[in-house]
Amino acid sequence: MKVAIIMGSISDMPVMQDAIDILKEFGIETEVDIVSAHRTPEKLVDFSTKAHERGISVIIAGAGGAAHLPGMVASMSPLPVIGVPVKSSNSIDGWDSVLSILQMPGGVPVATVALNGAKNAGILAAQIIGSADNTVLNRIIAYKLSLKDAVIKASEGLKK
Amino acid sequence: MKVAIIMGSISDMPVMQDAIDILKEFGIETEVDIVSAHRTPEKLVDFSTKAHERGISVIIAGAGGAAHLPGMVASMSPLPVIGVPVKSSNSIDGWDSVLSILQMPGGVPVATVALNGAKNAGILAAQIIGSADNTVLNRIIAYKLSLKDAVIKASEGLKK
Amino acid sequence: MKVAIIMGSISDMPVMQDAIDILKEFGIETEVDIVSAHRTPEKLVDFSTKAHERGISVIIAGAGGAAHLPGMVASMSPLPVIGVPVKSSNSIDGWDSVLSILQMPGGVPVATVALNGAKNAGILAAQIIGSADNTVLNRIIAYKLSLKDAVIKASEGLKK
Amino acid sequence: MKVAIIMGSISDMPVMQDAIDILKEFGIETEVDIVSAHRTPEKLVDFSTKAHERGISVIIAGAGGAAHLPGMVASMSPLPVIGVPVKSSNSIDGWDSVLSILQMPGGVPVATVALNGAKNAGILAAQIIGSADNTVLNRIIAYKLSLKDAVIKASEGLKK
Amino acid sequence: MKVAIIMGSISDMPVMQDAIDILKEFGIETEVDIVSAHRTPEKLVDFSTKAHERGISVIIAGAGGAAHLPGMVASMSPLPVIGVPVKSSNSIDGWDSVLSILQMPGGVPVATVALNGAKNAGILAAQIIGSADNTVLNRIIAYKLSLKDAVIKASEGLKK
Amino acid sequence: MKVAIIMGSISDMPVMQDAIDILKEFGIETEVDIVSAHRTPEKLVDFSTKAHERGISVIIAGAGGAAHLPGMVASMSPLPVIGVPVKSSNSIDGWDSVLSILQMPGGVPVATVALNGAKNAGILAAQIIGSADNTVLNRIIAYKLSLKDAVIKASEGLKK
Amino acid sequence: MKVAIIMGSISDMPVMQDAIDILKEFGIETEVDIVSAHRTPEKLVDFSTKAHERGISVIIAGAGGAAHLPGMVASMSPLPVIGVPVKSSNSIDGWDSVLSILQMPGGVPVATVALNGAKNAGILAAQIIGSADNTVLNRIIAYKLSLKDAVIKASEGLKK
Amino acid sequence: MKVAIIMGSISDMPVMQDAIDILKEFGIETEVDIVSAHRTPEKLVDFSTKAHERGISVIIAGAGGAAHLPGMVASMSPLPVIGVPVKSSNSIDGWDSVLSILQMPGGVPVATVALNGAKNAGILAAQIIGSADNTVLNRIIAYKLSLKDAVIKASEGLKK
Repeated sequence: MKVAIIMGSISDMPVMQDAIDILKEFGIETEVDIVSAHRTPEKLVDFSTKAHERGISVIIAGAGGAAHLPGMVASMSPLPVIGVPVKSSNSIDGWDSVLSILQMPGGVPVATVALNGAKNAGILAAQIIGSADNTVLNRIIAYKLSLKDAVIKASEGLKK
Repeated sequence: MKVAIIMGSISDMPVMQDAIDILKEFGIETEVDIVSAHRTPEKLVDFSTKAHERGISVIIAGAGGAAHLPGMVASMSPLPVIGVPVKSSNSIDGWDSVLSILQMPGGVPVATVALNGAKNAGILAAQIIGSADNTVLNRIIAYKLSLKDAVIKASEGLKK
Repeated sequence: MKVAIIMGSISDMPVMQDAIDILKEFGIETEVDIVSAHRTPEKLVDFSTKAHERGISVIIAGAGGAAHLPGMVASMSPLPVIGVPVKSSNSIDGWDSVLSILQMPGGVPVATVALNGAKNAGILAAQIIGSADNTVLNRIIAYKLSLKDAVIKASEGLKK
Repeated sequence: MKVAIIMGSISDMPVMQDAIDILKEFGIETEVDIVSAHRTPEKLVDFSTKAHERGISVIIAGAGGAAHLPGMVASMSPLPVIGVPVKSSNSIDGWDSVLSILQMPGGVPVATVALNGAKNAGILAAQIIGSADNTVLNRIIAYKLSLKDAVIKASEGLKK
Repeated sequence: MKVAIIMGSISDMPVMQDAIDILKEFGIETEVDIVSAHRTPEKLVDFSTKAHERGISVIIAGAGGAAHLPGMVASMSPLPVIGVPVKSSNSIDGWDSVLSILQMPGGVPVATVALNGAKNAGILAAQIIGSADNTVLNRIIAYKLSLKDAVIKASEGLKK
Repeated sequence: MKVAIIMGSISDMPVMQDAIDILKEFGIETEVDIVSAHRTPEKLVDFSTKAHERGISVIIAGAGGAAHLPGMVASMSPLPVIGVPVKSSNSIDGWDSVLSILQMPGGVPVATVALNGAKNAGILAAQIIGSADNTVLNRIIAYKLSLKDAVIKASEGLKK
Repeated sequence: MKVAIIMGSISDMPVMQDAIDILKEFGIETEVDIVSAHRTPEKLVDFSTKAHERGISVIIAGAGGAAHLPGMVASMSPLPVIGVPVKSSNSIDGWDSVLSILQMPGGVPVATVALNGAKNAGILAAQIIGSADNTVLNRIIAYKLSLKDAVIKASEGLKK
Repeated sequence: MKVAIIMGSISDMPVMQDAIDILKEFGIETEVDIVSAHRTPEKLVDFSTKAHERGISVIIAGAGGAAHLPGMVASMSPLPVIGVPVKSSNSIDGWDSVLSILQMPGGVPVATVALNGAKNAGILAAQIIGSADNTVLNRIIAYKLSLKDAVIKASEGLKK
């Protein structure tokens, strides 16, 4: 019941931190590492083929530009892989990251979230764990209620 | 350990059938229905708020155009929701379906797969179940090996 | 003869304020609230199904990203719904908001205006009221003349 | 209480017919004509400046490519103008029609519907009339119920 | 042998100034005005139908967003009309201006230049005049030589 | 008073024929040739540098994909160059042709018309000639009247 | 002096055949195989790390959708890798293939050619070999002359 | 064994410097110049037709907007040409540069790298030379190892 959070480059950290933070809020253990599909291909193979044997339940992978990390991990791991398209500096408005993570061929899905959507990746990982774990499921239900409360408070603040 | 597959319109069925078929291959029970965010909003609420109480583990929702079904279900259910952007007839090349499913706000993730990627939605649902169920995990490992075998056979065919 | 102006998040307020201001100029009463399709789905249902029974004539709904609020309100209210695509922070250049509001399926129209076009949403609401109310119609005619005068003055300023 | 439906070219008729048909269903009188912003500019001026004096309540304007008709009518009429982007033959996937109708400057709104969305334009026109006419409002409520029934029947058909 | 330079709003002036400046360099008389297709439609008709009777040879029209000015002038004037897509504040990256000027229907051309390309609009106007006027043609030939010289100097500077 | 019509490949002929036909209607002499920027660069230089010395007034250049022909001719000729983006077989929906013709750098304009808009290129060439030749100008005025008549006849046909 | 041509799926063969054919014309030996980044990751590693030790000079890799093959090969091989974006069936107009091959991060280039541009990939491979081999260089010079001749013949045909 | 690096304008230098720097690291001689396709067409012809006779092995060409330089050089040189799309000031988000370099017609390839990807252009040039030169090949192998080391160090830093 651990979530691995990997990213292609240390420069993706400010975006990916949101996934770490929200998983902490849900009381779910995380493991964070840099695994570059293009610069450390052996580490990629090693990480991907063994993650499910090390007690990891879900993998979150963030990358920008021609973002191959999420798809390559998904090709070698039987675990659900969540892809976070990161809007990196020379990206063409983020379209490259989005399309190279989302448009995977039949057989190898990546659960893609919004551009820079690391927070949602963390919540989705918690929901995946929660789908077979009632304690976590109840935390998600409570979290959704807290979202509602925040909107209701904002609504009340507006009316004053 | 059941997967619900819903779609906004009966016209999405030819695309969504792929999810049903692959889940059958994985021996996972499915439940199929039409739930339109825009035409049956009460049914949407009813389905979304109760799915996790009825033994459903994962929801797959397919829709085209301004595709609100996956996101609206995700807003009301604590379960992981997989969104399938369907390229419907008056779609602007599928961009509308993709963006209105993918770009969810913080707090409400939808696990988006490729345009018309219902097969991958089914595999992802199986992977989510497999992340806490070794029998299913092993079927996924076997499935990935079968993909490899198909490519190797095609490669051998090419060389002859 | 009241216009309801709702938005998905308090962060949409700077954009949506333009609608409030121009409707004030037209002497039309407004009601402003935050209704999040994804965070307060029950409030969404309540608001949408009852608005026409509370003396509201037109609904203006603004939202960003995968913007489901205008379409979901339109699915439950018989009133004309005007959608304002808001260019939110992680939006992909506004395309997500525009397409998820504009590309509604047959049966459930949303009257979409330009990206961040809340001022035009207010004017359109006034025109809708004016189509059955001569006092308001005449204010719109006067408003259009004032637009012309501003251009003519700018033209004269240029020539000096 | 009449809706004018105009289009830039007779080739837009197959798309625009949907607006005529649905308004007939709602029992709303229509007037149909060809008015080309680019080929009959005088007729455009004449139509736009006088429509509200001839008992017309709402104008629906359809056009393709660099589609200036809806916006030009809106610039000269105080009535609500609904724009239908038509995907014409040499259109760049419909983007040209959509953007040249939707992205109107401040002061001159066009209520834009989906690409080829003439049916929704008709429904929106009915909703505009219904916002001040209870008989029409009730027909819209009934229409929305019929949409729901169709989905429920499809759902039942699926389960058999 | 005069070029009219018009724009939809005074806010387009910083972009359009480039056209005025370069035409001055070519010794060609200009006339500058604000003509808004959407706010001063009568002035638009008056300007467009009479320009060729007032000694004007070429019209340059700049506008942003749903930019109808160049096309509407072209629909009423027999003169060549050059359109300058202006990247205005709420534009969707300039695509709206470009497509609503470029994609004119058969029969009504607008000579479109690059986004914010007012300088090139001025040069093109000079080339149009030069196509029947040897003095101007020779100035264009000289101008092209000066462009070459600037590049050659930059090249020499680089090598030092 | 002759218009040169060139294209990058014989496969562009079906599109470019429209320019030839409409110029014939205007009684303007044409010269047609294949000049490939990428396959016959010497011919390109020869054609471009000498066209204005051979009695040619306007050049129309059509090309698809990475369409360099119009811009390269414009870089070497002082004449006005009209670019026709052709939607060729492996084009990415025509965007490549449009952008590589339209977005010319400062100093080297190409008068770009709509995708596959060869007819408009021909009309624009006639307008350029007409800007200094009253006989041609009057033919254009007559042509515009004929466009109006066609719309009015279609309008009358519709009403019957 | 051998070129390896690999592709992600046998369905890419009709496109990739063009590379094989043109390299045959240049008298360059080829080796063709199917290597799927997502389905045969071990084969991918094996192929990529050893190609330069087996006498291969250039690698051509074609793939569609989220096309990771060219980039992953480039990450593990020191050889120049040419990427061919293939427009596969569920591709979003080819944009996904193009961007996921082109937008590689710093350090790992892929020499990208046009969508479905396998023929150009073959020519580029020949040019790479020709840059250090005069026999091949001369064949390329001859090939370019033959392109010119074809255009000149088409031009002559047109004039008759 | 020299690489020529050319660019359309001195303003491209900050981007193109990366190519010069990385080639220096690889110990490969470079020659840098400004050659504008549109402003110095004669220099373009001279450079392109003679480069292979002057000991140059690879050409890197960078340009922005309607970027014709790489394609035009490729049309006249038998050498491999690497194109760098530069995101210039009035570019439409870089799409114009990318498409006008990438989408070359059959027969005239340009090896395109990512937007502003001059560093990768330099590495690719080194790989091309390395494909026939073992000393350079070994430097590339060493460079790839250094990329891996940097990631591994970042990974270790993260864990502390």
